[in-house]
Amino acid sequence: MADLTLMHELAIPGTSKMVMLILDGLGGLPMYFGGGTELETARTPHLDALAGGSTCGLMESIGAGITPGSGPAHVSLFGYDPLQFQIGRGVLEALGIDFHLGPNDLAARGNFATVDEAGLITDRRAGRIPTETCVALCDRLRSIKLPGAEVFVEPVKEHRFVLVLRAEGLDQAISETDPQKLGHAPLPAHALNPQAERAAALVNEFVTQARKLLQDQHPANALLLRGFAKHPALPTMNETYGIRPAAIATYPMYKGLARLVGMDLLQTGDAIEDQFTCLEQHWADYDFFFIHIKHTDSRGEDGNFDAKVAVIERVDRQIPRLMRLNPDVVTVTGDHSTPAVLAGHSWHPLPFLLYSHYCRPDRLEAFGEFQCGRYGSLGTLTAVNVLPLMMANALRLTKFGA
Amino acid sequence: MADLTLMHELAIPGTSKMVMLILDGLGGLPMYFGGGTELETARTPHLDALAGGSTCGLMESIGAGITPGSGPAHVSLFGYDPLQFQIGRGVLEALGIDFHLGPNDLAARGNFATVDEAGLITDRRAGRIPTETCVALCDRLRSIKLPGAEVFVEPVKEHRFVLVLRAEGLDQAISETDPQKLGHAPLPAHALNPQAERAAALVNEFVTQARKLLQDQHPANALLLRGFAKHPALPTMNETYGIRPAAIATYPMYKGLARLVGMDLLQTGDAIEDQFTCLEQHWADYDFFFIHIKHTDSRGEDGNFDAKVAVIERVDRQIPRLMRLNPDVVTVTGDHSTPAVLAGHSWHPLPFLLYSHYCRPDRLEAFGEFQCGRYGSLGTLTAVNVLPLMMANALRLTKFGA
Repeated sequence: MADLTLMHELAIPGTSKMVMLILDGLGGLPMYFGGGTELETARTPHLDALAGGSTCGLMESIGAGITPGSGPAHVSLFGYDPLQFQIGRGVLEALGIDFHLGPNDLAARGNFATVDEAGLITDRRAGRIPTETCVALCDRLRSIKLPGAEVFVEPVKEHRFVLVLRAEGLDQAISETDPQKLGHAPLPAHALNPQAERAAALVNEFVTQARKLLQDQHPANALLLRGFAKHPALPTMNETYGIRPAAIATYPMYKGLARLVGMDLLQTGDAIEDQFTCLEQHWADYDFFFIHIKHTDSRGEDGNFDAKVAVIERVDRQIPRLMRLNPDVVTVTGDHSTPAVLAGHSWHPLPFLLYSHYCRPDRLEAFGEFQCGRYGSLGTLTAVNVLPLMMANALRLTKFGA
Repeated sequence: MADLTLMHELAIPGTSKMVMLILDGLGGLPMYFGGGTELETARTPHLDALAGGSTCGLMESIGAGITPGSGPAHVSLFGYDPLQFQIGRGVLEALGIDFHLGPNDLAARGNFATVDEAGLITDRRAGRIPTETCVALCDRLRSIKLPGAEVFVEPVKEHRFVLVLRAEGLDQAISETDPQKLGHAPLPAHALNPQAERAAALVNEFVTQARKLLQDQHPANALLLRGFAKHPALPTMNETYGIRPAAIATYPMYKGLARLVGMDLLQTGDAIEDQFTCLEQHWADYDFFFIHIKHTDSRGEDGNFDAKVAVIERVDRQIPRLMRLNPDVVTVTGDHSTPAVLAGHSWHPLPFLLYSHYCRPDRLEAFGEFQCGRYGSLGTLTAVNVLPLMMANALRLTKFGA
């Protein structure tokens, strides 16, 4: 539905517990004709048993043929319309380093870059300078003062940093300074509408001052800015669904996305096993848990089929720990597909299972793309419907109308 | 689609006959892991045969995870968007006692209640007074005169009654007088927008006069009003689809919902067999029949799995009588699920079959949730699409575009 007003009206308090287990990039493809996907190849006895007692289907994050980034894919999973609530790259990058964005913050993703004596770009990533250099350069850029605006420059990793300008009324509609080509000079920022002129002027003033501070810092003697964006005004999951949600995530971007919808971030070790230990430790404290497993996606992005299979098997071994907690509702899926054969995100719908005490089991023989597609009674469902379905199965939505 | 303008444009006259057989609350759940639902457990040789020759699927009344009340569920089945055409509780209650609401009527659901000497509520239901007492008290309240408005006070059952104020321009946006808590005084009605001030004033004047008339009527010495609502302006099914529809229903609320969309109400005996006799008798007179079987829902609400199974079997035995009439299109489904295990309405999609001379049979082995989910070619369909599908199968919708 993604009708937040309706969800707010129907949500009722309760003590039932929900777990959303996201294996990032779970969906896959066979490596050869007739082969299985990563999930189908993995030995997953516990997920298979769970799927047998679950309602299943294939899940589309956004829509037919759309390959989602992590931002919109998670926004959908959290029950918000990803086209209505768009999250710019600058914001995602800021979330990724745990920068707490406020409503007056305009964020951009920055790259340190190399320019030649004519000012033309020779390396858009400044030879991937070490992170320590990036930290030192960001420190240097913090001396920049802009009229009427606060400036934050935060290192990310290697050549990447985040720029945040804080001032009332800054509009995000400004063009990027990165020409995305070698042999060109960095571009000035242009206001794409009249309201954005102040923001564009501030960005250009920042760039002018930065150029002076960087000119002797070869190879990081220039910078490029992309993805100017403000924080979207998402209502929290507590406001919308009346739940107390917590996130068990290890990567900053997913923590940031969880914070954006008002989840508490739980302290967890990085290993998959640690994440389930964290779940056990906090089981009494929340009624909704978002567990984010990163490495299925990373290994898919690497094009490493076997390594992705191994991550899935490692998650499978934790399923008994999850089920021993006797959760009322469990969903297992991903945010998008990352088939190793494509070494990147894809548009393919994802295997999806929903287990609850009140689900109608589709009696799948295994958890996998083919079985979910052939036997899943949910058919192709949309990610924004996942949270309403979980809420219903948790007996946490009252009747609509009389 | 629920695009009424489009339906109106495409609808063409014809003599084909359609039957919508609604087993209220048909959808169910197993009572134990591995068991069948109520429908799957029932012995239904005729419905099974019909399903084998039908196009099938699982039907969602409103949307994923939404548990519908009877009002919005039927509005959807009749081909209207249930979010656009919302039916308030006061209106449903009036429909339920066969009160003919007009466009100037503002209806509310009333409770007789008990207050102590300080005017604080001690029983929101006045000890569930006998219906005869309710009738007498309503009679007494009919003496109330309001300036410029007609007043109707109609008994429902036990402590429940319906209040209808009839005057031009009354707005429904007024707050309820029932604090829904003991130890509080009844609340005054407040206008929630400026247009509703007259309605709020009339309601408060009614309450003031009623208080005097009830003060010596312990335990029914007060009243509480909820769900102020006006009749939604639904176009009739005849206007939208060009059909002559009739309803064969035994419960007032469903008769009222049918009347709301312009169906003729046929006189029928209360027994399921009587409803099919009524169908036979009026077969020549209409081209669309809505048959509403109430007791599948009632037994589900009671949590009585076996009794619900028995009602389904009783309906099954009437299917040959229906099919001997050689209908052009038959749908069999419900308005929502009422699993006995939940003893109430639920969000689960419903088994659905559409038989016609021009349907593509999905060759199900039986009519049931699992079979419809696994083998139904309609996948998960939405209730608002049922009527367009029936019209199409009746060859009563012309081509869209050239």
